[in-house]
Amino acid sequence: MAGKAKEQAGRSVTSKVVALLEAFDPAAVELSLNDLARRAGLPLSTAYRLATELVEWGGLERGDSGGYRIGLRLWEIGSLASRGVGVRDVAVPFMQDLYEATHENVHLAVLDGREALYIEKISGRLAIPVKSRRGGRVPLHATGVGRVLLAYAPPDLLEEVLAAGLRRYTPHTIVAPGHLRRALAEIRRDGFGFAHEELTPGTASVAAPVFGADFAVVAALSIISCTSRVNLRRLGPAVRLAAICISRELRDGPSPAGIRPVAGARQRS
Amino acid sequence: MAGKAKEQAGRSVTSKVVALLEAFDPAAVELSLNDLARRAGLPLSTAYRLATELVEWGGLERGDSGGYRIGLRLWEIGSLASRGVGVRDVAVPFMQDLYEATHENVHLAVLDGREALYIEKISGRLAIPVKSRRGGRVPLHATGVGRVLLAYAPPDLLEEVLAAGLRRYTPHTIVAPGHLRRALAEIRRDGFGFAHEELTPGTASVAAPVFGADFAVVAALSIISCTSRVNLRRLGPAVRLAAICISRELRDGPSPAGIRPVAGARQRS
Repeated sequence: MAGKAKEQAGRSVTSKVVALLEAFDPAAVELSLNDLARRAGLPLSTAYRLATELVEWGGLERGDSGGYRIGLRLWEIGSLASRGVGVRDVAVPFMQDLYEATHENVHLAVLDGREALYIEKISGRLAIPVKSRRGGRVPLHATGVGRVLLAYAPPDLLEEVLAAGLRRYTPHTIVAPGHLRRALAEIRRDGFGFAHEELTPGTASVAAPVFGADFAVVAALSIISCTSRVNLRRLGPAVRLAAICISRELRDGPSPAGIRPVAGARQRS
Repeated sequence: MAGKAKEQAGRSVTSKVVALLEAFDPAAVELSLNDLARRAGLPLSTAYRLATELVEWGGLERGDSGGYRIGLRLWEIGSLASRGVGVRDVAVPFMQDLYEATHENVHLAVLDGREALYIEKISGRLAIPVKSRRGGRVPLHATGVGRVLLAYAPPDLLEEVLAAGLRRYTPHTIVAPGHLRRALAEIRRDGFGFAHEELTPGTASVAAPVFGADFAVVAALSIISCTSRVNLRRLGPAVRLAAICISRELRDGPSPAGIRPVAGARQRS
């Protein structure tokens, strides 16, 4: 007990507030006070006191069943995160076009640490439901967007990913370093890449890089669909074209209304 | 100085962290340390220490120009906010259909306090650009979604809104209590409502209520467009139809794939 008390005393209040927020994840969007305290590693009384302050602010809310959940005020402040927003704002209209043209799930992801983070998803009733969501993270080596981001990232990142080990999610996941290096080289050669049932059985993706004003890759655009529904390789050029349009607008600003030429110079292949 | 120090001493660390986060708003997505401290009402040293902890966590990030901004980790945790998520997940495919049918900006809002909060927006290159955004708040008395939410809210809310005073945003804003009451009664009678240049000149909206499983209104669906482009009154039935489809799915669960009858019983009029 003495050791535990000392450990608690060494934690800043900020770190405890952070621990409370970090207790939530997509599989635990509502938590009882007990679970909240346990997951945050805090004594019940501390968790209760801090959670009460956060509820008063609106950063947490009480659910219908009495549990705690992330509040709309935190969602609202989180929506001010500006990294990626410039890309997203330019990308969304083209993502919408791509959805209308294909009726498949369209995603935009950015690199965050050693993972790809979905910052936008456009989908509809005509698309195959897939589990991906805005705010979701996926591994770099086993997804279309991840491999595209990895293909154009500084080489150090690939070495870090290889050093951490390539986890096998399905029998199709690329787990051999040489195989992954070849896949990345193919993406740089073709301007788009595929992942076929490597993270989730029955699901495949095709992705292409979005280049910023300085020609560095700032995001990856993808379509995710059901392998039985469509030959995704046929959609590669459409995804690449949309990514080129987004890249051009990031570089040159918007084309005059109504005149948006779709012929795109190869960007970096 | 003694008074100020005492005031600081009386604030909990949690409230200081909250003040730092609350310093950001849509017009200030990146702040210098000075501005951050000033807006949060904190001494520079305290702001620096807390901001540094939040940057280490990822809740804040440093921008290219050295300022502070909301971090992707906070956005990610915010995206777990579950109030409204059930409605949004059901609504998005129908919002997508409505966009494809009209090529206008489609919005979903929930009631939060005495404001309407946009929890989803679907738009594309064919829609007139409007300023609204996910996470944006609008007043109840001067917008389509706001009036729909107010029309079906407990009567106390209307009294609170009236007591707070009806702010005039444009020459067209409804500011007379009797006029507002009539507009709300018309919404309950017709199942949808309009707002014409009441918040922003040149912009109009048409909105309809989304009913949850217990027949209480859980959200409002709207189209916002440019008054010179379209007679929004003509789009009222389409918006109402989409809202009825969403309400039915919230009540009955999804229809079998491919068979989604669009004839909707009147819900509450």
